[in-house]
Amino acid sequence: MRIGELSRETGVAVPTIKYYVREGLLPAGRLTSPNQASYDDGHVRRLRLIRGLMDVGGLSVSAVREVLAAVDSPERPVHKVLGAAQEAITPKSAVAPEGLEEARRTVAELVRRRGWHTDPDHPSAEAMAVALAAFRGIGRGDFLEVLDDYADACERVAAADLAWVGRNAEVDGLVESVVVGTVLGDAVLMAMRRLAHVDASARRYEKDAEGGAAPGAGGR
Amino acid sequence: MRIGELSRETGVAVPTIKYYVREGLLPAGRLTSPNQASYDDGHVRRLRLIRGLMDVGGLSVSAVREVLAAVDSPERPVHKVLGAAQEAITPKSAVAPEGLEEARRTVAELVRRRGWHTDPDHPSAEAMAVALAAFRGIGRGDFLEVLDDYADACERVAAADLAWVGRNAEVDGLVESVVVGTVLGDAVLMAMRRLAHVDASARRYEKDAEGGAAPGAGGR
Repeated sequence: MRIGELSRETGVAVPTIKYYVREGLLPAGRLTSPNQASYDDGHVRRLRLIRGLMDVGGLSVSAVREVLAAVDSPERPVHKVLGAAQEAITPKSAVAPEGLEEARRTVAELVRRRGWHTDPDHPSAEAMAVALAAFRGIGRGDFLEVLDDYADACERVAAADLAWVGRNAEVDGLVESVVVGTVLGDAVLMAMRRLAHVDASARRYEKDAEGGAAPGAGGR
Repeated sequence: MRIGELSRETGVAVPTIKYYVREGLLPAGRLTSPNQASYDDGHVRRLRLIRGLMDVGGLSVSAVREVLAAVDSPERPVHKVLGAAQEAITPKSAVAPEGLEEARRTVAELVRRRGWHTDPDHPSAEAMAVALAAFRGIGRGDFLEVLDDYADACERVAAADLAWVGRNAEVDGLVESVVVGTVLGDAVLMAMRRLAHVDASARRYEKDAEGGAAPGAGGR
């Protein structure tokens, strides 16, 4: 198909498609004449992947490039590719808040307690330590009390994710599934957590609110 | 304390502090002379909250402003304030991908099936529908199969979150806890999900990778 048709099929504007080609996110079309290129279903699929990672996952152009490089390297051992894809989509924090050392020990202790086979230097361990230090910085270090509930939930989610990923037997489809499942899955999980909050909060506070009274001893 | 001390205490640069005051995120200090203002522990706490929401939660200045407006409105009924705070921190997607209508029905069906007390028009229901439509757009509509595992996990997380929030009896502390717990809690949950992925993936694929063989029927 021509670029105009690719644009109609995916809803991505022609100049944006050209930008993705220049940025190395999308392979160039096959030249059919000096001024015309032809695109196929692989381009449609890749464009939808790019937009999903950006629009739903909130990834930057450079993060998408890293992720696609992992997706496009199926000759590397699966375990390494999965690791690289994971690393590319792990948010990195630039700040080193107070209490970070202690938070790192908390994370290492959690990983040990749960028996998780993970590298203590994994970027996600660091991201988690930064978030825990932020809780402590605003006086809510007691958030640590929920960590094992979160870990139970994450183990359940990870088992479901892996089973879902495993339904794709081919390696390149596998890596793409990991990336998509992680990034879009985060969006689903965050949205669903909020719905579950609304439900839990409605059950707990709705009657109080209707009566105009606030919950707890502070009242108002 | 003077602004320089506030800066040292929080690690936030003086011009940035002044910027937050101009943007209405941080209350101005109490003027002690025409050219000098005094700040207190409330400013320290608020600055740490702002930086946590931005650096760890990834919120924009305008999103932080909305969230703080909810935190600063304790005279409103608790249920309403919680709703406003939730809405301010729910990512909004600008795209309307193909298959959105069907995805909305999937979300409504999930909410009905789980018996959740949530408004079908809640922004998180829409955010979830957009993410599910993105899965379908790249040919992985089978992600629906994991939704009930995710819902089990989210109910567990929400129960832990609400219990944690409830440990703060005062209303303004309550709202701040909801906001912080939601935004920073997302960061903890995303990081922990990745660690759980690494663990599950290591258990499943490490031996294959060491032997140089790819998993699954497709091989390599």
